[in-house]
Amino acid sequence: MRMIDLIEKKQHRQALTQDEIKWMIDQYTADVVPDYQMSAMAMAIYFNGMNEDERSALTMAMVESGDQIDLSDIEGVKVDKHSTGGVGDTTTLVLAPLVASVGVPVAKMSGRGLGHTGGTIDKLEAIPGFHVELSQQDFSELVNKNKVAVVGQSGNLTPADKKLYALRDVTGTVESIPLIASSIMSKKIASGADAIVLDVKTGAGAFMKNVEQAKELAETMVNIGKSVGRQTMAVISDMSQPLGNAIGNGLEVKEAIDTLKGQGPEDLTELCLVLGSQMAYLGGAADSLEEARTLLEANLKNGKALEVFKTFVEAQGGDASVADDPDSVLPVAAYTKEVLADQDGVVSEIIADQIGIAAMMLGAGRETKESQIDLSAGLYLHKKVGDKVSAGESIATLYSNKAISDEVGERVLTNVKLSDSATEPTLVYDIVQ
Amino acid sequence: MRMIDLIEKKQHRQALTQDEIKWMIDQYTADVVPDYQMSAMAMAIYFNGMNEDERSALTMAMVESGDQIDLSDIEGVKVDKHSTGGVGDTTTLVLAPLVASVGVPVAKMSGRGLGHTGGTIDKLEAIPGFHVELSQQDFSELVNKNKVAVVGQSGNLTPADKKLYALRDVTGTVESIPLIASSIMSKKIASGADAIVLDVKTGAGAFMKNVEQAKELAETMVNIGKSVGRQTMAVISDMSQPLGNAIGNGLEVKEAIDTLKGQGPEDLTELCLVLGSQMAYLGGAADSLEEARTLLEANLKNGKALEVFKTFVEAQGGDASVADDPDSVLPVAAYTKEVLADQDGVVSEIIADQIGIAAMMLGAGRETKESQIDLSAGLYLHKKVGDKVSAGESIATLYSNKAISDEVGERVLTNVKLSDSATEPTLVYDIVQ
Repeated sequence: MRMIDLIEKKQHRQALTQDEIKWMIDQYTADVVPDYQMSAMAMAIYFNGMNEDERSALTMAMVESGDQIDLSDIEGVKVDKHSTGGVGDTTTLVLAPLVASVGVPVAKMSGRGLGHTGGTIDKLEAIPGFHVELSQQDFSELVNKNKVAVVGQSGNLTPADKKLYALRDVTGTVESIPLIASSIMSKKIASGADAIVLDVKTGAGAFMKNVEQAKELAETMVNIGKSVGRQTMAVISDMSQPLGNAIGNGLEVKEAIDTLKGQGPEDLTELCLVLGSQMAYLGGAADSLEEARTLLEANLKNGKALEVFKTFVEAQGGDASVADDPDSVLPVAAYTKEVLADQDGVVSEIIADQIGIAAMMLGAGRETKESQIDLSAGLYLHKKVGDKVSAGESIATLYSNKAISDEVGERVLTNVKLSDSATEPTLVYDIVQ
Repeated sequence: MRMIDLIEKKQHRQALTQDEIKWMIDQYTADVVPDYQMSAMAMAIYFNGMNEDERSALTMAMVESGDQIDLSDIEGVKVDKHSTGGVGDTTTLVLAPLVASVGVPVAKMSGRGLGHTGGTIDKLEAIPGFHVELSQQDFSELVNKNKVAVVGQSGNLTPADKKLYALRDVTGTVESIPLIASSIMSKKIASGADAIVLDVKTGAGAFMKNVEQAKELAETMVNIGKSVGRQTMAVISDMSQPLGNAIGNGLEVKEAIDTLKGQGPEDLTELCLVLGSQMAYLGGAADSLEEARTLLEANLKNGKALEVFKTFVEAQGGDASVADDPDSVLPVAAYTKEVLADQDGVVSEIIADQIGIAAMMLGAGRETKESQIDLSAGLYLHKKVGDKVSAGESIATLYSNKAISDEVGERVLTNVKLSDSATEPTLVYDIVQ
């Protein structure tokens, strides 16, 4: 086989065979096919797309390019969730104990974040003592016992995807739905997921700027999942404002605890129930999404979800009293500052990625891999889309361990848009199954 | 400026500015922009094209990437000719003395060939004593004195084009009209041409498989030439059979001499008159193409063209008696073999590139840069499209200094197609000016 022939096939709108895709990915991973040929291929795929068979073959070729996690000693259907990214996304912290509370195993492999706020592990480490250094055996035992555990990523998962993603990033080929879909799905499958729930974000703060694009991506991923034997569902959800009110690691832990007590922000609670229903249904805890939702709602009210959270935190060395008294246990920022409205109005839009950058400037996220996260840093939005604001009223509180510059407050003020009126935002646009 | 932004612009069908193209080519030549970004750009250009301004900017950026030959000490308008390549193309050998004979300076910089037969220099070296090692000053003096000289390529011309062409060759981006056009035009302009005549070949044996494609390429190149101040004209000519009858270096020299005597093959003579008319007209020797043709026809008849050829050969150390007695002066092959027709019929098509490969197998061309050319090797077609053939009659004579395998004869026989009837081939499809 010659890469030039495969490039020309794709260029002329012919489908690549499974063998061709497997060969291409293997040779690229082995540094035999050079970057300049793969970038030409990625650009040809950008223009001419890939059919269902090609997308599935690409996903599995990337899965097989590296290690695959074996979760077979964990009982039950292992359901994983993936979000296409957003700002202030606290869903994983809520979903892990919530879904575990209805008996579905949550064997979460997670990473540290490079973005506006930390990853799930960074957030959990805001709880004193919490650690994710577990052997594979301890991890499995914990999930079998408590139905939930979180472990740091190990092994060499999907090296082909890592290499291809880095190349796409510098060659204008990130925005290709087949390439995005196979990248996401390959990582979930290599991590050992039996079933997958996808939260595809849409809106100004998300990668998919409109609902149609988001739906196309969701459908593509669901089809890939099904074709390779992984039950997959997706939610198209809103990112035209941050989810919940808290952005920042410790702040999000507190918000997750509130939500597990049934006292969380309405949008975060609702999205967790929608995603959680899909996870519980695919995990076999209920015969329908409606039944699954009823079970989850009950466990938010009756305290079972919070109970599972405590057990989970304690099992991984954390101070479980955080659930009862988060303010005393979680790190406290040395500096706070209120962002005051400079006029009356109604919040019409909150540009999520700009708010995320403000949180990062306060210390909540990493600008480079080497940056240290300030677990107490971040911001809390007192107003969301549709809320009335009076001049002089606080829109948000900023938290940091370094003196807070005016620049950050101005960035928040500029990106919480006020107008005369606002339409009620839609949280969930669609479900793809 | 960032290459990624330029790639994305092109991807989204926006035109690149002159400054952006200049920056991109300079940085690529300097190895700052990596191959993998340039191949993504080339693929985006393949799909989205380039407008007139972009194509001119790309051409001039490639011209400026290296040395530019200064022919200003040669009197008159320097007209260069380029052919997009074919098999048995003897036109340059005829055109150089023919056009010089009407007073237009032909300052030909040429290379050795990597293909079915040698380049112009290889062909001329079939004449004993002929050499092309001339200083720039001697070259200019010879052209001023005799109106014609041929020199080997020197200097570092269009390094950007060399680098980009090698990349396109392995990334499926050769077949892009803006990239082909700017590649050809940049080389001609860097070689010092004031005006350019293009012979764009079409047909099975050519790169442009149909007339429409060939015309698009011709129009693109003519527009580039005009926009950068070089008068340019083009001929769309047939390559559905080899031009003339001889394929091979010494054999083509003999055919060129015959043509300069007014006794050459009809198609080669006609194409030389059409191309030569454009060169003579652009060079200022005539006020119209018709007038130019009349002058050229006269010089084929009255012996002036042949006289110029002799002077030219002698001036560069060659044995000018080749013009009077080519068979005694040119190298003679040790082996010959006739290819006999195996049935009656009329020649309907001669697959030129396959015939070219047969010539190369006999020793007429280089398979790699290191290969030695056999200047006596090649083949002579006794039959062309439209000619009747009887079973057992010779279609072609093969010449080589090594024993001739049956394989070569079979390749020729297979690729001279016979049928019940044939339509008269068109030689010149169109003129673009």
